Amino acid sequence: MPGVELDPRLAADSHFLAAFKSGSVLLHHNATLPWFILVPDTGARRLHEVSSPLRELISAEVDALTAYVMRAFDCEHVNVASIGNIVEQLHIHVIGRRRDDPLWPGVVWGRLDAGPEYSEAEVSAIASAIEELREA
Amino acid sequence: MPGVELDPRLAADSHFLAAFKSGSVLLHHNATLPWFILVPDTGARRLHEVSSPLRELISAEVDALTAYVMRAFDCEHVNVASIGNIVEQLHIHVIGRRRDDPLWPGVVWGRLDAGPEYSEAEVSAIASAIEELREA
Repeated sequence: MPGVELDPRLAADSHFLAAFKSGSVLLHHNATLPWFILVPDTGARRLHEVSSPLRELISAEVDALTAYVMRAFDCEHVNVASIGNIVEQLHIHVIGRRRDDPLWPGVVWGRLDAGPEYSEAEVSAIASAIEELREA
Repeated sequence: MPGVELDPRLAADSHFLAAFKSGSVLLHHNATLPWFILVPDTGARRLHEVSSPLRELISAEVDALTAYVMRAFDCEHVNVASIGNIVEQLHIHVIGRRRDDPLWPGVVWGRLDAGPEYSEAEVSAIASAIEELREA
């Protein structure tokens, strides 16, 4: 379970997958693209306001998540961002991108309508893979 | 001067400000928002492909740039992102945001048409501030 309470909008838009050392890993409901979100266990709103060693841990776990997303979803690229204009709780997007995805080469934020959902079995399988990543 | 050759599109869209330890700091021509870009001195396309100690240096300098942008441009928030769907050279956006900016709360990428330009004096003053940041 997450170490800090999730913003209601993040909780409503995503599946909780796993607790990493730095925070919670979520999967956006919309399965159009592999869209993961790391929510660090901190009250800071912005990355530069997070102190060591959590700050370094976030970078390391975002990088591990990035490598996983590219490998597991056969993506050519990835978009990594901390935006948070609407949801104030610090969260980092890790979004796998492919040249054949419907939004390429544009960004995803604010441009993705309702789309396909993951099945329970898919969420469960992804959560298992994410758990292994944490323990590596 | 930059340690690696800048992608022509990045060079065309921005002013070169300073060489940080991790790479070049650019200022986007469009002065609608304070839009900075760090271009690390690496051939890697994605952050998770950058090895230590450059990887840690990039995070530290992005954080320093973020703090500067919020302070110097009186911003309430900042968007930090590595996207690179169009320009393949690794670059990290650090964009100051305010509730009264014309794109709030949306993202900036792909939504900003031609806008006001900085004067030479403004670019020079910002470059000086950035130089001091590097030496801190």
